[in-house]
Amino acid sequence: MSKALSPERTIDELKELRALTGNADGAQRVAFTPVWVAARDFLRKRFEGLPVEMHDDAAGNFWATLRGDSEKELLIGGHIDSVPNGGWLDGCLNTLAGVEVLRRISAQYHGKPPVTVRVVDWADEEGARFGKSLFGSSACSGSLDIDEARGLVDKDGIKLPDALEQVGIDFEKVKDCGKELKNAAAYLELHIEQGPVLLDQDLPLGAVLGTFGVERHAITFRGQAAHSGSTPMDRRRDAFLAAARMSPEIYEIAKRSGIGVCTIGSCTTKPGIVTSVVADCRITLDQRHLEADKLAAMHAEARAASERFAEESGCAVEWERLWHIAPAPFDPDLVNLCEEAIKETCGVSHRLPSGPLHDAAEMCMAGVPTVMMFTQSLHGISHNKIEDTKEEHLAQSVEALDKLAEKTMAWIKAGS
Amino acid sequence: MSKALSPERTIDELKELRALTGNADGAQRVAFTPVWVAARDFLRKRFEGLPVEMHDDAAGNFWATLRGDSEKELLIGGHIDSVPNGGWLDGCLNTLAGVEVLRRISAQYHGKPPVTVRVVDWADEEGARFGKSLFGSSACSGSLDIDEARGLVDKDGIKLPDALEQVGIDFEKVKDCGKELKNAAAYLELHIEQGPVLLDQDLPLGAVLGTFGVERHAITFRGQAAHSGSTPMDRRRDAFLAAARMSPEIYEIAKRSGIGVCTIGSCTTKPGIVTSVVADCRITLDQRHLEADKLAAMHAEARAASERFAEESGCAVEWERLWHIAPAPFDPDLVNLCEEAIKETCGVSHRLPSGPLHDAAEMCMAGVPTVMMFTQSLHGISHNKIEDTKEEHLAQSVEALDKLAEKTMAWIKAGS
Repeated sequence: MSKALSPERTIDELKELRALTGNADGAQRVAFTPVWVAARDFLRKRFEGLPVEMHDDAAGNFWATLRGDSEKELLIGGHIDSVPNGGWLDGCLNTLAGVEVLRRISAQYHGKPPVTVRVVDWADEEGARFGKSLFGSSACSGSLDIDEARGLVDKDGIKLPDALEQVGIDFEKVKDCGKELKNAAAYLELHIEQGPVLLDQDLPLGAVLGTFGVERHAITFRGQAAHSGSTPMDRRRDAFLAAARMSPEIYEIAKRSGIGVCTIGSCTTKPGIVTSVVADCRITLDQRHLEADKLAAMHAEARAASERFAEESGCAVEWERLWHIAPAPFDPDLVNLCEEAIKETCGVSHRLPSGPLHDAAEMCMAGVPTVMMFTQSLHGISHNKIEDTKEEHLAQSVEALDKLAEKTMAWIKAGS
Repeated sequence: MSKALSPERTIDELKELRALTGNADGAQRVAFTPVWVAARDFLRKRFEGLPVEMHDDAAGNFWATLRGDSEKELLIGGHIDSVPNGGWLDGCLNTLAGVEVLRRISAQYHGKPPVTVRVVDWADEEGARFGKSLFGSSACSGSLDIDEARGLVDKDGIKLPDALEQVGIDFEKVKDCGKELKNAAAYLELHIEQGPVLLDQDLPLGAVLGTFGVERHAITFRGQAAHSGSTPMDRRRDAFLAAARMSPEIYEIAKRSGIGVCTIGSCTTKPGIVTSVVADCRITLDQRHLEADKLAAMHAEARAASERFAEESGCAVEWERLWHIAPAPFDPDLVNLCEEAIKETCGVSHRLPSGPLHDAAEMCMAGVPTVMMFTQSLHGISHNKIEDTKEEHLAQSVEALDKLAEKTMAWIKAGS
């Protein structure tokens, strides 16, 4: 058994998985489907010959455990599921890199590392089929709203509990998997960035500061329908005018916040005809920040602006919260270790927040010291068949994750 | 036979027509329907006992002609058809006031006025059923696009030619009615304002300067979909931002134009989801002005602004013309006479353009000297059951139209 890490093997395995579970439209590893089951089997086979215990927990998360001298556990997590027509790396880079790290640790410590090391493959991170992301990790962290999840249906009308039963999972017991975290001492997750920050700076890797908190609202401005020909401009109560003024404003709000982002993703108008001033205009606003107080400030500023624009346009405005989640700032020690590991691998690092959510956010909120590492995404995009990362960067990411795992084991040991 | 004009009689007849052809939801005199036929019969009966010739022309327009000393004709036009659930006065005020004016002229001149006087009730001004307004008057003026009209269908799939056949009209011959204008020397049309200008100034009546020309376009901005969490603000190509900036801008453009109006009536976004920057944003822009050069300038300014905003947002922009019509400025002499008639009736007048189109625009563009008179609309709205006008103003409008008809007869006589 070689003691050397082989990032090339991980790249080969990623390609093999792509051939097995993708097609011309991209990755098709949608959770709880036969292709996903095949991907899981592929993953399981990677651990054969290693001294690990394997099991699926109550929520369908897969665990491979290498027992160490200490019961305290280092978790390396990812997700092998993808969106339909997804990218080849999103999620599975984490699990397959985790396999390689486990191989190296097992070899180096002759099957008995200083702390217990586990690779977890979370079930249904993407939520592509049922519209609820982070299913497995939120069941494990305890944040899953079981009553809400019970009612979820896919586009064919199949209920989540029935889909789970098909793959041998009892929906009513999914939260029992929370016990898996009893000895968790640290959680590491490697992921492609899915954005353009590292690409723009021509950097292979970055240490992630945490996942953004999100405030997501629908904002409806209510004015008055009026004939486009007979209504003088100064007599209008134009709901589109009020809503439109929000767009440049959210750019200012985001700028003032530092690293926050704000997005108006949709706009609908009523009556929505060419010959009438808009009576009702509904926009959606998604705001994200790594710091709770700054997120709250961004939200308050947007609300104040909407009220000002509404008043100036003779409109009323209503806000409806669609969803929110608190920021999950990662463990400062682990962020430092992550940065060290990256610098040792490629000489330069960068700290950045994660806009998208990840399973790591659930672990962080469950109280497990957590950090993520990002590797550059070509094109800066994901959830698309053109999603890609240079092989050189993939290899560096496996190497840096391995260094981070080693440092984290020492950190756990030192803390105990 | 009394020589005196009786505006009260017109108001009584309007109420009678409302009872006959309206319901709790408003007026139901949709063209070419049985209720419209009943309204037409009611109108026809108003002329009984007067020395007039009556006939329906090739497009279904109804004409009542009082022959005068001169073959030259004064036309008083309106439309008895309404939109579904329409206002009780929109259109029929004109025709019934015309009846009363004809009664007065016939009485005063013992059935033989100085010039021939005709009341015309245009067919399907509203275009409510087939989506093509000014049907009868555009057939008469010659501007009707016969190939386009041939293909029009109502919501039940009935073709316009078939609906016309039901009421005895041969679609292929509708433009033959153009001969009705052979001796037309002036065209007068009284209408409710349908906007708030006279209401705001607390004025009963106004002289209309002409109908606005219209430039109607769809504008599509094309940017790039991007994840709302992972895409920094300065990396976005946000099509909604570019489109939104058009809204305050069109208010500035309208202001600079003097009396022009600009309306963004609808906005659609793609992919239109809360978690993505908007890739494509389509808005409709309706611009109206009384002067062709100013309308052209408004259009050019909007186009330039759209290109500027697109560039600043990293987007492309495409314009598609949906419709346009040239302004129809009314006859200056007749506008003066209209103002005189109004001042003699109620002491004060106001000149204003018409944002909505009217049959008068067709007459104007056919080369017939034309003017319209507006009477105040309560609430400033129309095409709605709450549309209304004070009885005092209705009476004044009939009186002023009568004075204008008298002045116009003299003007025709003087010009011949």
